[in-house]
Amino acid sequence: MTAIAAPIDATRVEAAMSRALSLAEHGPAVGDNPQVGCVLLDGDGTIVAEGWHRGAGTAHAEVDALSKVADARGLTAVVTLEPCNHTGRTGPCALALIEAGVSRVIFALDDPSERADGGAERLRAAGIVAERGPLAHEAEELLRPWLTSARLGRPFVTVKWASTLDGRAAAADGTSQWITGAAARQRVHEQRARHDAIAVGTGTVLADDPSLTARGDAGELLAHQPVPVVFGRTPVSADAALRRHPAGLIEVGHRDLATALPELLSRGIRRLYVEGGPTLASAFLRAGLADEVLVYLAPLLLGGPRTALDDLGVTTMAEAHRLSIRSIESLGDDLLVTCRPDARSSSHLTPHS
Amino acid sequence: MTAIAAPIDATRVEAAMSRALSLAEHGPAVGDNPQVGCVLLDGDGTIVAEGWHRGAGTAHAEVDALSKVADARGLTAVVTLEPCNHTGRTGPCALALIEAGVSRVIFALDDPSERADGGAERLRAAGIVAERGPLAHEAEELLRPWLTSARLGRPFVTVKWASTLDGRAAAADGTSQWITGAAARQRVHEQRARHDAIAVGTGTVLADDPSLTARGDAGELLAHQPVPVVFGRTPVSADAALRRHPAGLIEVGHRDLATALPELLSRGIRRLYVEGGPTLASAFLRAGLADEVLVYLAPLLLGGPRTALDDLGVTTMAEAHRLSIRSIESLGDDLLVTCRPDARSSSHLTPHS
Repeated sequence: MTAIAAPIDATRVEAAMSRALSLAEHGPAVGDNPQVGCVLLDGDGTIVAEGWHRGAGTAHAEVDALSKVADARGLTAVVTLEPCNHTGRTGPCALALIEAGVSRVIFALDDPSERADGGAERLRAAGIVAERGPLAHEAEELLRPWLTSARLGRPFVTVKWASTLDGRAAAADGTSQWITGAAARQRVHEQRARHDAIAVGTGTVLADDPSLTARGDAGELLAHQPVPVVFGRTPVSADAALRRHPAGLIEVGHRDLATALPELLSRGIRRLYVEGGPTLASAFLRAGLADEVLVYLAPLLLGGPRTALDDLGVTTMAEAHRLSIRSIESLGDDLLVTCRPDARSSSHLTPHS
Repeated sequence: MTAIAAPIDATRVEAAMSRALSLAEHGPAVGDNPQVGCVLLDGDGTIVAEGWHRGAGTAHAEVDALSKVADARGLTAVVTLEPCNHTGRTGPCALALIEAGVSRVIFALDDPSERADGGAERLRAAGIVAERGPLAHEAEELLRPWLTSARLGRPFVTVKWASTLDGRAAAADGTSQWITGAAARQRVHEQRARHDAIAVGTGTVLADDPSLTARGDAGELLAHQPVPVVFGRTPVSADAALRRHPAGLIEVGHRDLATALPELLSRGIRRLYVEGGPTLASAFLRAGLADEVLVYLAPLLLGGPRTALDDLGVTTMAEAHRLSIRSIESLGDDLLVTCRPDARSSSHLTPHS
């Protein structure tokens, strides 16, 4: 058994974790696996190797880092997430760390998913110090969608809509192009590319025949295409643009969100971007199934009946869905207000707090 | 006749106008008279006296500045607005400048109102150089409400509403207290105190029995109280809180804005703060009678039927009322979005552009 090294100075551990988080961000934000970074430190706390996970089917961060050194014996591994003890398309990281002979593993976050399967315990059983380290909050922020899906057994849900400053999504005659300008529309495409799937209702498919692809500002397809998911009973017609979507098409066939969402997760969909229309967006909000809310506000007033949201199940002020505004951005003439459910809210929006 | 002095260096004139604008801001933003500042320069461009207007019935800025020097002969007067040639409660400034013997008058803006009555011409007829100077844009910004009322023959209209992020002003059962937080509500009181009158509809009076006073954060009455103006046919009841308003009460008796607004101006109301409800706010917007739009957005979602605006006369997107966002402020958890009609808009919101 490897001798236990003396603990490394806390400042150097935090610097190493910060570096591991930066490495993690290089990994893909979409897909079934979390973004993870890892650095290996010698006894002085100097980084001797770095690794990060490049997506499902490739080496995990720990294995990637271990591959950069000839001899890992006695090193300390600093990793953003508890090493897995799960054999999927690659072997368990806990085993790789044990076999490499590291003496200490410091991780920012416990892994809440079944893939963890006691990674830290397995390390400890092999005589390795395995402990929670610094920057848990930063790691939680980075992995919030993945962690949410792991904890709740459903995709992380982003509900997005675009409206005028008075909350309308269309004029009285149904015209809605273009409420927001080019910069806001481009941001929507970038956000689509950061999700595994896009949800729309059958009403929107019938009314707009959207392509729901993620495109660059020259109209080109972006590298990652989220799969469109259609909620509602009406089948998508054979000549609908969605039938030609490069990522395929999922027709849910109903609007029972509680049933549909775990099924979507089981298909590897961890990040769902709900684009509407008003009925579907309102259904997600009403059910407390919105983990992030993106409101694009255009400097227009329309009045009239076509609101961007309809019934949220609220009858009196005390039941209002309370949000916490995380940021406000100007995009051309428009505003993007990014919100989360507020912890002070009623249960509507915070099923997991 | 006084000899004509050589022109003063342009940089010094601009610095003097900048100072005059700062002085003007000391004056009251409410009331029938504009905020005006004046400085007197010697031949080197050095400021030898300053003045500003403290409100109707007191000395105008030019006269205030002249009162500070024993001998104004040969001086240059730099003033933010064309000197008046009108005898109201005080005599015409043009005459005071002529009698004092100044040799040159530089003003940032022409006075569009009848009170100007050829002030610059009268100065010129007396052999004084009278000319437009620098910082016209800054002066226009400072005096925008007053100039708008002078040009259009009606009060400058600020339409304000508070809504949730989805554009609702109340929950389905009518409850609306409090959509916005304390900081936003305090800002509303400060804005009331910067207007001559507050407009509400009879529906709001019946539903909320508002006091419509301008109060400080301890609930105390602020020094200036705008007069409440009630639009609609229903008389305000004898026991309504508005009957006890310290500034009195104006009951319009109808909702014909085109008739009512010039009448309000004739009563000295130059700045009107439209507080709603939705019907009245929408009527002002629909008629193109909103010079400034203040939208308080609370981080709440309500859904349901009670929108902050109702019918704006828009049937299709091309008719949308287009605004220009001037600023976004965080007030506690809320946002205040300050807008003006956009010059690119249809005629709806820009009757005077």
